[in-house]
Amino acid sequence: SRCGYPEVIFCEGKTSASLVEIFSTLLESNQRCLGTRISEEQAETVLKQFPQAIYNQTARTVRIPEKDAAFDEKLIAGEIAVLTAGTSDRPVAEEAIETLTWMGYEPDFILDVGVAGPHRLQEQLPRIQNVSAIVVAAGMEGALPSVVGGWVSCPVIAVPTSVGYGASLGGIAALLGMLNSCAANVTVVNINAGFKAGFIAGLIADQKHSTS
Amino acid sequence: SRCGYPEVIFCEGKTSASLVEIFSTLLESNQRCLGTRISEEQAETVLKQFPQAIYNQTARTVRIPEKDAAFDEKLIAGEIAVLTAGTSDRPVAEEAIETLTWMGYEPDFILDVGVAGPHRLQEQLPRIQNVSAIVVAAGMEGALPSVVGGWVSCPVIAVPTSVGYGASLGGIAALLGMLNSCAANVTVVNINAGFKAGFIAGLIADQKHSTS
Amino acid sequence: SRCGYPEVIFCEGKTSASLVEIFSTLLESNQRCLGTRISEEQAETVLKQFPQAIYNQTARTVRIPEKDAAFDEKLIAGEIAVLTAGTSDRPVAEEAIETLTWMGYEPDFILDVGVAGPHRLQEQLPRIQNVSAIVVAAGMEGALPSVVGGWVSCPVIAVPTSVGYGASLGGIAALLGMLNSCAANVTVVNINAGFKAGFIAGLIADQKHSTS
Amino acid sequence: SRCGYPEVIFCEGKTSASLVEIFSTLLESNQRCLGTRISEEQAETVLKQFPQAIYNQTARTVRIPEKDAAFDEKLIAGEIAVLTAGTSDRPVAEEAIETLTWMGYEPDFILDVGVAGPHRLQEQLPRIQNVSAIVVAAGMEGALPSVVGGWVSCPVIAVPTSVGYGASLGGIAALLGMLNSCAANVTVVNINAGFKAGFIAGLIADQKHSTS
Amino acid sequence: SRCGYPEVIFCEGKTSASLVEIFSTLLESNQRCLGTRISEEQAETVLKQFPQAIYNQTARTVRIPEKDAAFDEKLIAGEIAVLTAGTSDRPVAEEAIETLTWMGYEPDFILDVGVAGPHRLQEQLPRIQNVSAIVVAAGMEGALPSVVGGWVSCPVIAVPTSVGYGASLGGIAALLGMLNSCAANVTVVNINAGFKAGFIAGLIADQKHSTS
Amino acid sequence: SRCGYPEVIFCEGKTSASLVEIFSTLLESNQRCLGTRISEEQAETVLKQFPQAIYNQTARTVRIPEKDAAFDEKLIAGEIAVLTAGTSDRPVAEEAIETLTWMGYEPDFILDVGVAGPHRLQEQLPRIQNVSAIVVAAGMEGALPSVVGGWVSCPVIAVPTSVGYGASLGGIAALLGMLNSCAANVTVVNINAGFKAGFIAGLIADQKHSTS
Amino acid sequence: SRCGYPEVIFCEGKTSASLVEIFSTLLESNQRCLGTRISEEQAETVLKQFPQAIYNQTARTVRIPEKDAAFDEKLIAGEIAVLTAGTSDRPVAEEAIETLTWMGYEPDFILDVGVAGPHRLQEQLPRIQNVSAIVVAAGMEGALPSVVGGWVSCPVIAVPTSVGYGASLGGIAALLGMLNSCAANVTVVNINAGFKAGFIAGLIADQKHSTS
Amino acid sequence: SRCGYPEVIFCEGKTSASLVEIFSTLLESNQRCLGTRISEEQAETVLKQFPQAIYNQTARTVRIPEKDAAFDEKLIAGEIAVLTAGTSDRPVAEEAIETLTWMGYEPDFILDVGVAGPHRLQEQLPRIQNVSAIVVAAGMEGALPSVVGGWVSCPVIAVPTSVGYGASLGGIAALLGMLNSCAANVTVVNINAGFKAGFIAGLIADQKHSTS
Ligand SMILES: Nc1ncnc2c1ncn2[C@@H]1O[C@H](COP(=O)(O)O)[C@@H](O)[C@H]1O
Ligand SMILES: Nc1ncnc2c1ncn2[C@@H]1O[C@H](COP(=O)(O)O)[C@@H](O)[C@H]1O
Ligand SMILES: Nc1ncnc2c1ncn2[C@@H]1O[C@H](COP(=O)(O)O)[C@@H](O)[C@H]1O
Ligand SMILES: Nc1ncnc2c1ncn2[C@@H]1O[C@H](COP(=O)(O)O)[C@@H](O)[C@H]1O
Ligand SMILES: [Mg+2]
Ligand SMILES: [Mg+2]
Ligand SMILES: [Mg+2]
Ligand SMILES: [Mg+2]
Ligand SMILES: [Mg+2]
Ligand SMILES: [Mg+2]
Ligand SMILES: [Mg+2]
Ligand SMILES: [Mg+2]
Repeated sequence: SRCGYPEVIFCEGKTSASLVEIFSTLLESNQRCLGTRISEEQAETVLKQFPQAIYNQTARTVRIPEKDAAFDEKLIAGEIAVLTAGTSDRPVAEEAIETLTWMGYEPDFILDVGVAGPHRLQEQLPRIQNVSAIVVAAGMEGALPSVVGGWVSCPVIAVPTSVGYGASLGGIAALLGMLNSCAANVTVVNINAGFKAGFIAGLIADQKHSTS
Repeated sequence: SRCGYPEVIFCEGKTSASLVEIFSTLLESNQRCLGTRISEEQAETVLKQFPQAIYNQTARTVRIPEKDAAFDEKLIAGEIAVLTAGTSDRPVAEEAIETLTWMGYEPDFILDVGVAGPHRLQEQLPRIQNVSAIVVAAGMEGALPSVVGGWVSCPVIAVPTSVGYGASLGGIAALLGMLNSCAANVTVVNINAGFKAGFIAGLIADQKHSTS
Repeated sequence: SRCGYPEVIFCEGKTSASLVEIFSTLLESNQRCLGTRISEEQAETVLKQFPQAIYNQTARTVRIPEKDAAFDEKLIAGEIAVLTAGTSDRPVAEEAIETLTWMGYEPDFILDVGVAGPHRLQEQLPRIQNVSAIVVAAGMEGALPSVVGGWVSCPVIAVPTSVGYGASLGGIAALLGMLNSCAANVTVVNINAGFKAGFIAGLIADQKHSTS
Repeated sequence: SRCGYPEVIFCEGKTSASLVEIFSTLLESNQRCLGTRISEEQAETVLKQFPQAIYNQTARTVRIPEKDAAFDEKLIAGEIAVLTAGTSDRPVAEEAIETLTWMGYEPDFILDVGVAGPHRLQEQLPRIQNVSAIVVAAGMEGALPSVVGGWVSCPVIAVPTSVGYGASLGGIAALLGMLNSCAANVTVVNINAGFKAGFIAGLIADQKHSTS
Repeated sequence: SRCGYPEVIFCEGKTSASLVEIFSTLLESNQRCLGTRISEEQAETVLKQFPQAIYNQTARTVRIPEKDAAFDEKLIAGEIAVLTAGTSDRPVAEEAIETLTWMGYEPDFILDVGVAGPHRLQEQLPRIQNVSAIVVAAGMEGALPSVVGGWVSCPVIAVPTSVGYGASLGGIAALLGMLNSCAANVTVVNINAGFKAGFIAGLIADQKHSTS
Repeated sequence: SRCGYPEVIFCEGKTSASLVEIFSTLLESNQRCLGTRISEEQAETVLKQFPQAIYNQTARTVRIPEKDAAFDEKLIAGEIAVLTAGTSDRPVAEEAIETLTWMGYEPDFILDVGVAGPHRLQEQLPRIQNVSAIVVAAGMEGALPSVVGGWVSCPVIAVPTSVGYGASLGGIAALLGMLNSCAANVTVVNINAGFKAGFIAGLIADQKHSTS
Repeated sequence: SRCGYPEVIFCEGKTSASLVEIFSTLLESNQRCLGTRISEEQAETVLKQFPQAIYNQTARTVRIPEKDAAFDEKLIAGEIAVLTAGTSDRPVAEEAIETLTWMGYEPDFILDVGVAGPHRLQEQLPRIQNVSAIVVAAGMEGALPSVVGGWVSCPVIAVPTSVGYGASLGGIAALLGMLNSCAANVTVVNINAGFKAGFIAGLIADQKHSTS
Repeated sequence: SRCGYPEVIFCEGKTSASLVEIFSTLLESNQRCLGTRISEEQAETVLKQFPQAIYNQTARTVRIPEKDAAFDEKLIAGEIAVLTAGTSDRPVAEEAIETLTWMGYEPDFILDVGVAGPHRLQEQLPRIQNVSAIVVAAGMEGALPSVVGGWVSCPVIAVPTSVGYGASLGGIAALLGMLNSCAANVTVVNINAGFKAGFIAGLIADQKHSTS
């Protein structure tokens, strides 16, 4: 497979039947599957067909291990952290975590350390200052990635969420804030793109293990 | 005068002659003057006519004391702080400071404590935790007011600046960030509106001294 | 508590169970609670658990007095006014009022004095010219804060509402209008942010009572 | 001529030579001319060629009476008023006035009655409550047309100006405000379109004199 | 009443009970009523209470004649035309027509003469070249008002509709087109603002009948 | 060459020296050259080096015939028309015409037939109803392509221009109008993209001559 | 009929009854019908009345052959290709295909050849390098038309789709990308405008068969 | 230093004198310096003071080696590639390259491989398929990062440039395109932010060499 990782299925707008078909094909070619943006209804059908599948309702993802296998390999811990500014950013963060688990990583998950409560992040600093990549999900003004970027020396993948109202413009305010971050180590993905943020964090951690 | 303070003159687009005329009228009615957004050329004419005027080139302001008087009253210190994220936000911050001086306040000025260098703000916390109002000028992602708002209990007047490039959209990114601040004590004025930010901070401090 | 006021809970997107848990924790640490953007369904569960809670369906808020106490202290009147341009702006204004009540203030509420009926505001001027802070909620063109700002000398907290259609762009037109107010004493919060407007008005009134 | 009025020339981007040619053609066919958005340089050439031309530098217009005639007819007064919020809106207002003069009207001109100084408009109310149409030029938040619309019963032609900075977005804020006016008698033209505002006001006044 | 016309009620977001109350008050003070943006459910309640009311489901309006009277006066015809570009613009056009009927006018209604079928408008030109004011409702590119403006000499009130998809941006494309009309006699109201367009057309026609 | 036509050079931002080098290379490989968005200064250098070059100052283009050849082949006439709404749209239209000439076509050029003067277009209809493709350049509200599309049965390539002010938003209003055209035969290119409009019109005409 | 093709009916917002009426009228005047954006409910009524109608649920279209005829003529193949970037763009592509079928063409349909899987497009190149026009439907970043344009020499009609989330802004991102295509042979229609894209591709292919 | 790399100086808006002062301070504390967005005038002063400085006029950067040292260490090659779509994107790409050189890397530079000429990228594939990170600078539709992302398995840092006109909106079109990339390995920085793109690419390559 092109990127070292099998294809990921964007489930939104596909029929449950076609999902089952796609997953079957991937499994037959001995790939592990990841489905994102899956609805409860779609997940039900998929779980009936593939009882070994792991469904995360908050993340709206489903993972299926390779044929005749299980997700029982040892996950790599201590290399990636996933942070959220508030509890409402959790679904996006969990999509990143599911993606990373599917890639073989066990990220450290730190919830609700947004800038309005500065003590909370500072108590967690030891957990984020030795990792290879950090995913930060934040809505509203999207200030957390800049603050995190100021405390660490690894790349920070900022993922704006659509959490907020009024002038948050469905996540555009957070997106613009992150793009204009005065911290040089902050890079940005699309609004609510937890999958992409996790995938890029995983690719960065992969560099350490590559031997080319 | 309506607001307890004399009229402020927005100099942009007015002829130097008309500025002299307006200031003369105000001084005759025994008002102290403040001119904002004054150009170097306009300032030169005004200073020639009113040698007692105080011109701030960075702030683009001119202050003139009441007729037969001087700005020699004792300024009230310790009630207002003015912060900037970077050194490029200085002109906007100085417009706020000039406005506050004209209102009778001596604000504490703290430069370049943006979020990408988190230690810098924390060293200054003692200077901002006992004031009545804080003006915070920041461009790019405009995250500083949220962070400041998280450390203090007084109102924070956030003034976005047009500092930045690309997706900063001339200050719109900072403006949106500030409006969506997750800190409840942050309120916002127009992009580059140092005058307004200072004026509102002064009005807030005035509450302490009012006896109604 | 950091700001002199206990934490406020943004209820949108939280389960009723988690709300009950959060309120219980706050009450145990002897804090008075405020929940905003609460749904009817969430409110029902909360009221069942905390019969002393005060639910405002229009404002979408719930207040709970400190443990073994009641909201029976004397509210401070005469210091804050809350105005609306139209009757449709009422929910946002009531969120500000609930916030102020929770802070210990009894604001004066003046409904439907928008600029298209100029006599109505003028009849109410005596009620707004001696307060410490004014909240003005307006949708559509958002002109009322500017007009109010022209009649008073205290800070005016303008809160744009999403009332309107077409080019009102969900409150963006009102927001832009307020940010560009030609009245120097007008400052702005996010669209529909009644909580924030009320909170800042309360913090301003607090200055008068602070003794630092 | 189609509209009862001769063609108006938009001078921006045309050579001085081609302007002279166009005006000559119009004068030959016995039309009175109006040129808008004329530069100083263009005006100089036109004045040299047509000494009877009337050039208004503030309005950036030039008017030329019909061949062998002069603008000596009696202008109709008392039917149209032109108002501005601030002194910076004057150029747009003067373009409207020049257009109306060219149409045969003598509008009443009321400068600097913006909403931040509410007494000023009220003193002028007698001058605007008996006219057939009112042009209101305003920048920044563009609130004046709504307020004027609340005091009168004739159509109000609102013309947003690009006066302001930051979130005024070059007149977009004022434009949106005017389109969302809660006063039912307010209609809107393009930003800085003084010509159009004047022309429509003139067409409205014409109805009174038409005998069809 | 201020504008010579009684208050108009914007029904959206009001309870049926409060509508009945408002209409009762107006009728008691001997005013004729107009309610706009009324829902089917609201209309049912109103019709039950005021059987003399005239409900237009397409326009979403209700009219109620003055107490002990009926809309039996003779309507003034031949002075106003209402045009639409397509059949989907009909609801907005009918709101204008209901408003004009309530003002005492009988507008000429010309449907579906959009620019993609140029013959259709040309066949109708005799019906629009002698009126005092024309309302043109159009969505998508909003080109019809410009074309109409090119054929007539009276004011054209352009009302953009939200008809279209994709880059029509809910009517913004049509709104911008109309504001930039190269026809000098075109003025603009808010998206879907049929009421305003009709009201202004009526005020213009009123000029002919005023005797001041 | 890939498209049957040689490379076209976008001159903006290139040094005169590098332009000469690029053109030399193309001529050596026996291609005819087209340079667009060339400045006067760049053109001067190019003309000095290649005296056979044809420079169009209005279009900001330069054409150079194949080595040892000249543009003396017979141009194909009668297949393409290029129209403008106003005289200010001329530069964009001429860029399209230069591109078509370079492709071997001689388009019919019809200037200043915008919708505000409906007779002008109708007089020209015979010239546009038998061609294979029409380019229409228009600014402001961009209505002309829709009207043209209503009269003809071939594809209409609409090119919005940045002509206008205020709400024309530098051509965005015209662009949106054209994208929403109710005429089904209208397709759109970028603002001021005269080259692209001409190129596509030429490719369409080519279909008639292709023999595949 | 004006364009050589009969009228197309935009079904959205029309009653089923009025659709039946319109189709009847067209059939009586011996035209073949195409209805776009038809709902399942509308289609059911139409199919009951015209059993010869061909309904495509994915494309949301209905075609009806001329009275007493059938779509039995031989379709012209080999001249037009329709491509999509992903499977979610299929409905828009099928609307184009239905339109082309109704015009007498049988386009080649190539699904899911988006840029993230570059091999897929390259395998299909032989199918697209000899046609007269290509329709490319793509959402998200809308890059496929540029890439296709780089491989072929005929016009490419790019149709942005609203597929995507967050910063895709309902298709605006794809639309802007396509308008800025660096490939000179790419022209653009409205978001989701499959009908228009197909119609223009058909008109281009028509040129080959025209004998004028 | 916080990030393992010394401070980078954003030179825009700073006086030449203050630049000299900042660089002196950094050199004294034994740091190597990087200045970005430096003007020719600023560079001249800096070069006079620090003759060992390396100035890149295209990139608008200056690098100064550590005190008493030189940039003579061996740069790490083969780990990072920098690509541009066109030659106009070169300045942004060179800013990334200068940043990487300052970090100790020697990136592979591949110019002008934009999507409209698909063969060019494919010839270069061997140079990009074994690196750790790729920077891609592109303006206009910004499609190149998606295409590159489709061919490689490492992270792609996409940097939109302001190259283009009209609907490119100063780089916003490219930015939106990149954020919506259908390739999962693409992450994005601000418009023209060559420094940030290079810095993040360097941090990613650093992972391979870190031993924590
Ligand atoms: N820099 C500024 N920004 C915003 N408003 C200002 C500024 N300076 C003065 N003003 C306000 O503009 C008004 C004066 O405008 P003008 O009549 O045009 O001189 C005063 O009421 C001030 O409150
Ligand atoms: N300042 C102006 N703003 C908008 N339209 C104008 C203005 N001045 C003239 N026009 C219109 O522009 C048209 C003339 O444009 P042109 O043919 O380019 O001279 C006339 O029909 C006028 O109605
Ligand atoms: N899906 C569509 N998108 C854009 N225009 C369409 C579509 N379907 C039909 N049309 C156009 O809409 C016009 C019919 O509109 P109507 O009169 O409302 O049925 C025809 O001239 C068609 O060219
Ligand atoms: N071209 C650039 N774009 C964005 N950020 C930059 C650039 N150059 C330097 N910086 C950042 O700006 C900060 C320095 O800003 P300043 O204190 O104003 O010199 C550093 O922390 C850098 O990370
Ligand atoms: Mg939190
Ligand atoms: Mg700094
Ligand atoms: Mg009201
Ligand atoms: Mg004023
Ligand atoms: Mg129609
Ligand atoms: Mg013209
Ligand atoms: Mg795919
Ligand atoms: Mg190139």
